[in-house]
Amino acid sequence: MEFLRGTWGDGHYNEGIGRDDIFDKLREECGVFGVFGHPDAASLSYYGLHALQHRGEESAGICTVEDNGEFHYHRGMGLVKEVFTKDQLDNLVGSRAIGHVRYSTSGGSGLANAQPLIFKYRGGDLAVATNGNIVNAPAIRRELEAQGSIFQTTSDTEVIAHLIARSPKDFVEAAKDALQRIIGGFAFLIMTNDKLLVASDPNGLRPLVMGRLGEGYVFSSETCSFESIGAEYVRDVKPGELLILDDKGIREDRFEPMEKRASCVMEYIYFARPDSDINEVNIHSARKRMGRQLALESFVDADIVTGVPDSSISAAIGYAEQTGIPYELGLIKNKYTGRTFIQPSQELREKGVKMKLSAVRKVVEGKRVVMIDDSIVRGTTSLRIVNMLREAGATEVHVRISSPPFANPCYYGIDTPDRKELIASEKTTEEIRKAINADSLYFLSEEGLMKSVDPSGEKANAGLCMACFTNDYPTPVDEDSTKSCSC
Amino acid sequence: MEFLRGTWGDGHYNEGIGRDDIFDKLREECGVFGVFGHPDAASLSYYGLHALQHRGEESAGICTVEDNGEFHYHRGMGLVKEVFTKDQLDNLVGSRAIGHVRYSTSGGSGLANAQPLIFKYRGGDLAVATNGNIVNAPAIRRELEAQGSIFQTTSDTEVIAHLIARSPKDFVEAAKDALQRIIGGFAFLIMTNDKLLVASDPNGLRPLVMGRLGEGYVFSSETCSFESIGAEYVRDVKPGELLILDDKGIREDRFEPMEKRASCVMEYIYFARPDSDINEVNIHSARKRMGRQLALESFVDADIVTGVPDSSISAAIGYAEQTGIPYELGLIKNKYTGRTFIQPSQELREKGVKMKLSAVRKVVEGKRVVMIDDSIVRGTTSLRIVNMLREAGATEVHVRISSPPFANPCYYGIDTPDRKELIASEKTTEEIRKAINADSLYFLSEEGLMKSVDPSGEKANAGLCMACFTNDYPTPVDEDSTKSCSC
Amino acid sequence: MEFLRGTWGDGHYNEGIGRDDIFDKLREECGVFGVFGHPDAASLSYYGLHALQHRGEESAGICTVEDNGEFHYHRGMGLVKEVFTKDQLDNLVGSRAIGHVRYSTSGGSGLANAQPLIFKYRGGDLAVATNGNIVNAPAIRRELEAQGSIFQTTSDTEVIAHLIARSPKDFVEAAKDALQRIIGGFAFLIMTNDKLLVASDPNGLRPLVMGRLGEGYVFSSETCSFESIGAEYVRDVKPGELLILDDKGIREDRFEPMEKRASCVMEYIYFARPDSDINEVNIHSARKRMGRQLALESFVDADIVTGVPDSSISAAIGYAEQTGIPYELGLIKNKYTGRTFIQPSQELREKGVKMKLSAVRKVVEGKRVVMIDDSIVRGTTSLRIVNMLREAGATEVHVRISSPPFANPCYYGIDTPDRKELIASEKTTEEIRKAINADSLYFLSEEGLMKSVDPSGEKANAGLCMACFTNDYPTPVDEDSTKSCSC
Amino acid sequence: MEFLRGTWGDGHYNEGIGRDDIFDKLREECGVFGVFGHPDAASLSYYGLHALQHRGEESAGICTVEDNGEFHYHRGMGLVKEVFTKDQLDNLVGSRAIGHVRYSTSGGSGLANAQPLIFKYRGGDLAVATNGNIVNAPAIRRELEAQGSIFQTTSDTEVIAHLIARSPKDFVEAAKDALQRIIGGFAFLIMTNDKLLVASDPNGLRPLVMGRLGEGYVFSSETCSFESIGAEYVRDVKPGELLILDDKGIREDRFEPMEKRASCVMEYIYFARPDSDINEVNIHSARKRMGRQLALESFVDADIVTGVPDSSISAAIGYAEQTGIPYELGLIKNKYTGRTFIQPSQELREKGVKMKLSAVRKVVEGKRVVMIDDSIVRGTTSLRIVNMLREAGATEVHVRISSPPFANPCYYGIDTPDRKELIASEKTTEEIRKAINADSLYFLSEEGLMKSVDPSGEKANAGLCMACFTNDYPTPVDEDSTKSCSC
Repeated sequence: MEFLRGTWGDGHYNEGIGRDDIFDKLREECGVFGVFGHPDAASLSYYGLHALQHRGEESAGICTVEDNGEFHYHRGMGLVKEVFTKDQLDNLVGSRAIGHVRYSTSGGSGLANAQPLIFKYRGGDLAVATNGNIVNAPAIRRELEAQGSIFQTTSDTEVIAHLIARSPKDFVEAAKDALQRIIGGFAFLIMTNDKLLVASDPNGLRPLVMGRLGEGYVFSSETCSFESIGAEYVRDVKPGELLILDDKGIREDRFEPMEKRASCVMEYIYFARPDSDINEVNIHSARKRMGRQLALESFVDADIVTGVPDSSISAAIGYAEQTGIPYELGLIKNKYTGRTFIQPSQELREKGVKMKLSAVRKVVEGKRVVMIDDSIVRGTTSLRIVNMLREAGATEVHVRISSPPFANPCYYGIDTPDRKELIASEKTTEEIRKAINADSLYFLSEEGLMKSVDPSGEKANAGLCMACFTNDYPTPVDEDSTKSCSC
Repeated sequence: MEFLRGTWGDGHYNEGIGRDDIFDKLREECGVFGVFGHPDAASLSYYGLHALQHRGEESAGICTVEDNGEFHYHRGMGLVKEVFTKDQLDNLVGSRAIGHVRYSTSGGSGLANAQPLIFKYRGGDLAVATNGNIVNAPAIRRELEAQGSIFQTTSDTEVIAHLIARSPKDFVEAAKDALQRIIGGFAFLIMTNDKLLVASDPNGLRPLVMGRLGEGYVFSSETCSFESIGAEYVRDVKPGELLILDDKGIREDRFEPMEKRASCVMEYIYFARPDSDINEVNIHSARKRMGRQLALESFVDADIVTGVPDSSISAAIGYAEQTGIPYELGLIKNKYTGRTFIQPSQELREKGVKMKLSAVRKVVEGKRVVMIDDSIVRGTTSLRIVNMLREAGATEVHVRISSPPFANPCYYGIDTPDRKELIASEKTTEEIRKAINADSLYFLSEEGLMKSVDPSGEKANAGLCMACFTNDYPTPVDEDSTKSCSC
Repeated sequence: MEFLRGTWGDGHYNEGIGRDDIFDKLREECGVFGVFGHPDAASLSYYGLHALQHRGEESAGICTVEDNGEFHYHRGMGLVKEVFTKDQLDNLVGSRAIGHVRYSTSGGSGLANAQPLIFKYRGGDLAVATNGNIVNAPAIRRELEAQGSIFQTTSDTEVIAHLIARSPKDFVEAAKDALQRIIGGFAFLIMTNDKLLVASDPNGLRPLVMGRLGEGYVFSSETCSFESIGAEYVRDVKPGELLILDDKGIREDRFEPMEKRASCVMEYIYFARPDSDINEVNIHSARKRMGRQLALESFVDADIVTGVPDSSISAAIGYAEQTGIPYELGLIKNKYTGRTFIQPSQELREKGVKMKLSAVRKVVEGKRVVMIDDSIVRGTTSLRIVNMLREAGATEVHVRISSPPFANPCYYGIDTPDRKELIASEKTTEEIRKAINADSLYFLSEEGLMKSVDPSGEKANAGLCMACFTNDYPTPVDEDSTKSCSC
Repeated sequence: MEFLRGTWGDGHYNEGIGRDDIFDKLREECGVFGVFGHPDAASLSYYGLHALQHRGEESAGICTVEDNGEFHYHRGMGLVKEVFTKDQLDNLVGSRAIGHVRYSTSGGSGLANAQPLIFKYRGGDLAVATNGNIVNAPAIRRELEAQGSIFQTTSDTEVIAHLIARSPKDFVEAAKDALQRIIGGFAFLIMTNDKLLVASDPNGLRPLVMGRLGEGYVFSSETCSFESIGAEYVRDVKPGELLILDDKGIREDRFEPMEKRASCVMEYIYFARPDSDINEVNIHSARKRMGRQLALESFVDADIVTGVPDSSISAAIGYAEQTGIPYELGLIKNKYTGRTFIQPSQELREKGVKMKLSAVRKVVEGKRVVMIDDSIVRGTTSLRIVNMLREAGATEVHVRISSPPFANPCYYGIDTPDRKELIASEKTTEEIRKAINADSLYFLSEEGLMKSVDPSGEKANAGLCMACFTNDYPTPVDEDSTKSCSC
């Protein structure tokens, strides 16, 4: 019997020290990265995942396969740079690798769910890394358990492995069957002792791109990984596509004949790194267009424009350029905060201790401020920031949001609160304005957003999932569906 | 869906720092500990496992269940005291617990195999802690994989969970079926959301004892745990017995009607702690009797008797008492060595750097020495120690072994080398004597050993597994059987 | 005898993992923070130092004094958030505290030099935290050693403690004498069992500000600390001033009668946080004015303006606003890099792996780019960034530097290379342009810089140290003088 | 200026986890180890200190000197094996080294006091490692502070460095003057950029031995170090002797003309490792003779003899051999306890949880037990152990102590409680017997002890310090004298 050689890193969690979570932003989802046919597979994965770090700060993992089929893996809690030592990276030999960064769940189950998940089944070894959510995972899981399957994680990703293991067909056919059974938004990297499978859901909800580096292929959730490792972008993986890589090369197949593109618009608005391109649209440029469009839709006379760092800076600069109102650093974020920071006590917070974001008094004092943010979720953060600006002396605070009202939960991998906690599903814009203590408030229109993402109307725009704004979901969803990310 | 809350500790492995392994001793197996119905279940497990630490130094873990059925667990690499912080222990709430210490495999797969293993299946959660080996695990595993089962560990313990999960029967009946299917030597603690199952193999090969503490029940591989937590010994779990504990109390059942006791004699000779009792026979006393018996069988005129620390001290004192030759501290072991010690380079070793055991020059110089050891495996260690004594000035070294020649591998949980590496399977006593450079060598007779373990002939003696000496195995074993410990 | 209770944290250094140092930026100096008379002294220091983290990432420390005069301290290697656990912070009781963050020296001597330094002398205990450099420390040190003094650190800060300890005068007078003896640029916080002394060098070279929080006083290298803890800015500590705080309150004194202000201009250009104010001038605003002034002095027709993150963003926005050329995200920095990152091998770097900064292809491709940076030290970084932009498709790269040519080393706390390694001391602007492969290059004029720092000509401008540009040092410096930061 | 390159290790202290300290044993002192002229100086120190680990478990440190005079050091909290990683050891280059292990003070000040202490003075660098106590350190320290000296540690060892630094004489003469000024019991290793000094106090109170390894010299607190590194014992360092090693070889000198040997008798009774020799007397053999002598002085009819592990085993075996009563394992100590162990709560202790020592029920049940211990300090431990034996079923417990009543505090490096806490200074033997709940109690006579240490009356016996029994101190001691170890 041949067994895996793997190690598990540690978490270095200090009690009483939580993640920096006073802001009710939408949670980052996960990121995946894969290499096929490059001698530095593990190192490239390390740098590739590092570039995807913004997509998940809780855990990281890399699994490699040697030419003889032997698996090596290491997973741990924390940032990529915290999880891997040089020695651990050096142990991950082989020219094929898949890696994963995982977002931070509120009450998650830690290391046991860190990906890539590793399984042993009749066909050998299986490693799986996912970004996204399987809407019908609970139903499939119940069915598998009824047949005697054992689960080791709380991750829905595990169902794909069970579906493959239980199929009497050959591996690729079994994988296609399994991918057809699941519903949702997902990017999958599945590695066996001799193959790498790459798949995107039938709507292409989650981003997944293909590149080349030397003789090898690389795959990533975002193109920023390619820039960081010097790889060349080839194309986005298509909705419903299944790429099969093995010794014979790469084979393009499909598990779902129909392509119904519905790319997640929140990637453009908030999640993706500004230097990434999705469907060949640069994110920073799209955000700047959102800011310009916002200015066209809702100009307000003010002294300065400021953005909530980091994600709203591009839109704020766009707003400033369009209006001619100067862009200023009215808000600043401490770049050193992170998971291990000691949170100030309630008492100290009330006394004014801020650990993450502060207003810059000299910049906003006596000024009418346009504050650009990308979205309002519960409204509590917006209220806090508006008040921060007022305490620092802003005479007026006009809030401009570079997306429409976020009123519907996501079922495709974004960790959103329940519908009734979404302020936009409960309140009108005027009610929200009052709740966040702003002098005025405007949300970008749906048309404005679509135009900003893709001015030509030819690329991305052709198919965007805007269900969080429109309540129009591209797949069936029901009561039983898991809302949060299953990776 | 209800999920587990668990954490994984870390390994603290330093590269270049290995376990202290120059001596070719038999490897310690594992140890299990369980609590049912005591408010301090986790703490008691911590202290109980700590008392079993000699049975496994590689990893440790505890899983507890709250009254509401919720599982909590923590596992990690290292000693019990290294794996658990106070906070982690405090998080393990609940009045039921099972725990495990695992031995150190040469090329093992680390944390992933640390027990208790935790599974999710249709019936809820399952935690399993084992000591021993399932002889037919490879066959069962192949069968399960063919049916589509996925394995997450390389531990054969996982098969018991799959057998239970796949059975359509109720949990207790499914467990009985599973226990009947497996062949080998094992002590099992199986915990569900509402039950604790305790089982010993049909031969009672591995030790397992039951005690009481207040209102609760405790279970352990050895009675030394009970002394350390102030619990009262009740009885040994019987071969083939299945104890079922739940809200209704304890129920004594059997999964195997016939009892064919064959307790592992190596527990008496080497593995168990000297203050433990197995089948109501105290280990130290048994070892001292082995030493006395050895003196009766093979007296030699000498100046001092010395034992190889730690396991042979009792026998050496017995030998000294019987012969009147004074017992002296001719060999000393550094008590601070352990897993994280930096091993001396080959060059330094050749220059005489010793990290663990040294001879005491002032004690052995110019003396005829009787050196008592418990067993000879490959013979390399014995040669080294004999030479150490000679270099320190011993004029004669007479080796007396408190067990018969170890000539056959174990299939029941002791990590033994292949048969052809066992010096006693290849060489005569005289050839071994030459190989270890001793002036004389004698092995305790099989009859002498049996008499020493149980002079009355009534208790333990009634059924001992002495297959490693006699090649007479209490269960079927074949080519396919795994030899080493599967826990 | 009363003794200190102190602890030392650890470094968590992984071999083979260095600080992110491919860029030849000037090194950050140190930061100091102090609290007098506030029950949360240690916590406030933690958050205050965290806001100063950009001034020193190598080590951090806090020392507190209880009302009974007992000292408590903790120092360690790493970021503030890495050095302190909640328990360690809780142990630092007392209403008075001084803290320190230390910059990263290339071959520094680590924890032994971490501040605050703690001493025991005839007067009791002494804790010292410094930012800056004592030009004549080597001479004083030689003199003290000749008299039999023992040093425990390589930090020149230790001389101040020896000078005080050897003086027969009372503590405050001894401190004044000591401060008069030393020459250089420094901000000192000195704490005894009953007093806190705060001092700035006679030229006020290093920034040091005073604030109030409740009944207490706070001191910091930068005002951004005050915002982060909710304290109110009172004023900058004056050149040559000595503030004495004890049970009787605060006393304003001077150790140097003459005030010859010469504030370090590099704080405005590069070191200080953009949200801080020095001499009541906001840093972001000053930098934006530098960008605007740069545009006035050296307009170039281009498609986009981009800044080298993070320090040059403000200037780049100023340049864009003044010229009307859009500001774009042409360069992006990975915010997750840091001390523990595994550096790519030379081979991987040559293959294009970038760990920190990348150009955004979609943004710069086919564009004429104006690249704003704050300074050029050796020129190697500038060359690398220009090439990065070209490789990403920029058709022209025009470099604009928001400061004059940096041609002279600093003796007042900034870690600069030797003069001959400074490209501006060896080459003309045209030669530098060629060396960095730019299409054009312009440095901000000295007058333009002064005007940008303080347009009114009334505040900061009255006295700036611009020796690194002008070679006109405000104190005597000679061959023997230490160049680098002595804190 | 040339500076030291040193690192400081970390402590890895977990809150709420203390050292195993329920037993009121005398505290171990410190241990020193030195190498001069061997290429593996650091590694030899590591293994040499490891063999001295029993003399100090709190901190460890090694300082090496390269041929060019450069110092390298690493110190940290914890066991030798915990403090040093392979990389850290590899960094300690040079053929000369001194090392130290430090005992565990109750409220000590941790890493700052870890030795070797390192100083910089006019002559260069100085490293000092001590075992023992300087009785007049407080007075010297006050005098030095009055002259302006600064202290960085609370360790009295620092005074020797100041005395040397302040002397105008050359280094060796200055060291001799300093050694003459100090009073107490001490073994000193002092290393400079080009010399190693080795000194023992005028009474030779603390053990210090010299050996050879290849071309080099080695020094250690105990001979067990030599066995562990393969070195050859040469001789004990003489009282008042000063050895000077440099490029020219070794020079034997004296700082005190008169030799008044008074070797600490507690080293023979309790502190030293049984395989060590002091003054050529083997410790195990001496202890066994103490047990035999005890039997001669106070035979009692009983069923078994047992010793309190680990230090009283040798004496117990001697007692058993002399009386013919069998030696049995009546008490067992868990070998895995240590610094990081989670102590049981008071409640759990009361319920019977024992973390360290337990009685072996099967061995003592129904038996009359002779319990041998080496000393009684406060009496609380003895009471606990006697009760443990009774609870395990012993019908009688006769306590025999292998030393006279311990009634006087030590001023020479052993951490003893105040006189009034020493039970033997307050109570008669009969009162102590009652207090510890024994059936009978006997202390070894002073004459019996002396005879046991050295039956020939020629070696060690010639001069033993037995002040803790006799109140007859070999040096002046007064009110101001520090009692505890100053290393």
